Parts: sequence; structure tokens; C-alpha cells
Amino acid sequence: MTSTIALTAGDSELCCAPLTSETIDADQAEVLARTFKALGDPTRVRLVSMIAASEGHEACVCDLIDPIGLSQPTVSHHLKILMEAGLLTRSKRGTWAYYALVPGALDRLSKLLVSS
Amino acid sequence: MTSTIALTAGDSELCCAPLTSETIDADQAEVLARTFKALGDPTRVRLVSMIAASEGHEACVCDLIDPIGLSQPTVSHHLKILMEAGLLTRSKRGTWAYYALVPGALDRLSKLLVSS
Repeated sequence: MTSTIALTAGDSELCCAPLTSETIDADQAEVLARTFKALGDPTRVRLVSMIAASEGHEACVCDLIDPIGLSQPTVSHHLKILMEAGLLTRSKRGTWAYYALVPGALDRLSKLLVSS
Repeated sequence: MTSTIALTAGDSELCCAPLTSETIDADQAEVLARTFKALGDPTRVRLVSMIAASEGHEACVCDLIDPIGLSQPTVSHHLKILMEAGLLTRSKRGTWAYYALVPGALDRLSKLLVSS
């Protein structure tokens, strides 16, 4: 999206310069950066990919431990970071926790950044 | 994407277990994580947003310095990280460098991760 500005007297020096405007403010940039940072780790990328590939975009932590090849506390720690970043939701059924992808969360990330 | 597997004799023990498969391998996860990590910084998120909002999704580094409020070397450093992550391309025209958003780069990130 290119910003349009009303040119008034005194703005003439702007008329030929490329216009660069921000579509997100500093606070939104902080939130977005935090979410991207949560995905800036290969294990967490693999976890999101595995959950996305699971039936209903949901997986039991018990089914993630073996393929990831890390301990349950470590896997749970990574899942917690993804949850706090708003990418996953968690529900407990029986003794196990199930993690589901927040629908559209990843798409929203890129759309917020490039709203053209 | 939910995996489909052909059930044959011997696979019956799989029929009722949730299927968890990886759609990306460890190397792809490394590459994706590196790209997400590049975006895991508020200044870089703002730079991508500003470039995306510029005419032709391209901006001169000279027009990014003031709104970001950091020195030119610092801004150029952040832009270099985004370029190395495959999110921006750089072209030199006259004395200034212009940075353009790689078309579809952000969309591809989320699609690679969630190929559903």
C-alpha cells in the first residue's frame, strides 16, 4: 500500500521524493517480531510443521516427542513458547496435552507485514 | 496437509493412532528458522513493512534512515540480514542502494510451514 498525502504549500520539496510510510507502529512491530522470533528455532519450526500435518492441525505432545528426538520437558518448553506467541492453543484431555495450530495465524503474520 | 497412507497388512496397529508426520526435513527447518529469526527483530519488521508500503515494494536506503531513526550503517546492517534471509533484493542506482521485497517471500514462509 502506498500512502497518499495531501500536498500543501511548503510540501513541494516532497513532491518528487519516493514516499516511504509505515503501515505498522512500533508496538505492532514488537509483537510481530516476538512471534517471528518464536519461529526462529529449527525445533519449533519442525513442531509447527508436524502439528500442521496432523489430523485437524492438532497433535498430542506424546506423539511429538519421538519424531523430534528430545525429552518431553524440552518439547513442552518449545510448545509453550509457540503458544505464548499466539501460534498454538493447548487443551488437556486425559493425561496428555494437545496442541492445535491457531487457524490463519501464520498467514496473518505475513499479511500484517505486507498489507498490499 | 494430513498425510494419507495406504494401509496394508501389518499396518493395522497404525489405524487408530494419530498420524504425525513431518512435511519438512531438518535442513529445511534450519533454513526456515533462519528466515524467521531475521524477522525476529522490531527494527527489521518495521523495515520490511516500510519497504512493502513503498511504491513497487522498493525503497531507497536514504528514505528509510529518518523514519527508522537509526544511523545509516545500522539500517544497512539490518537490511543486509533481511537480504541474506532471502526476503529482500538489493540494487545500486547512483550513490544509493535500493531494497525490494522478494515477491511472495513472506507468503512462501507460511505455506512451507503449513502446506494445507
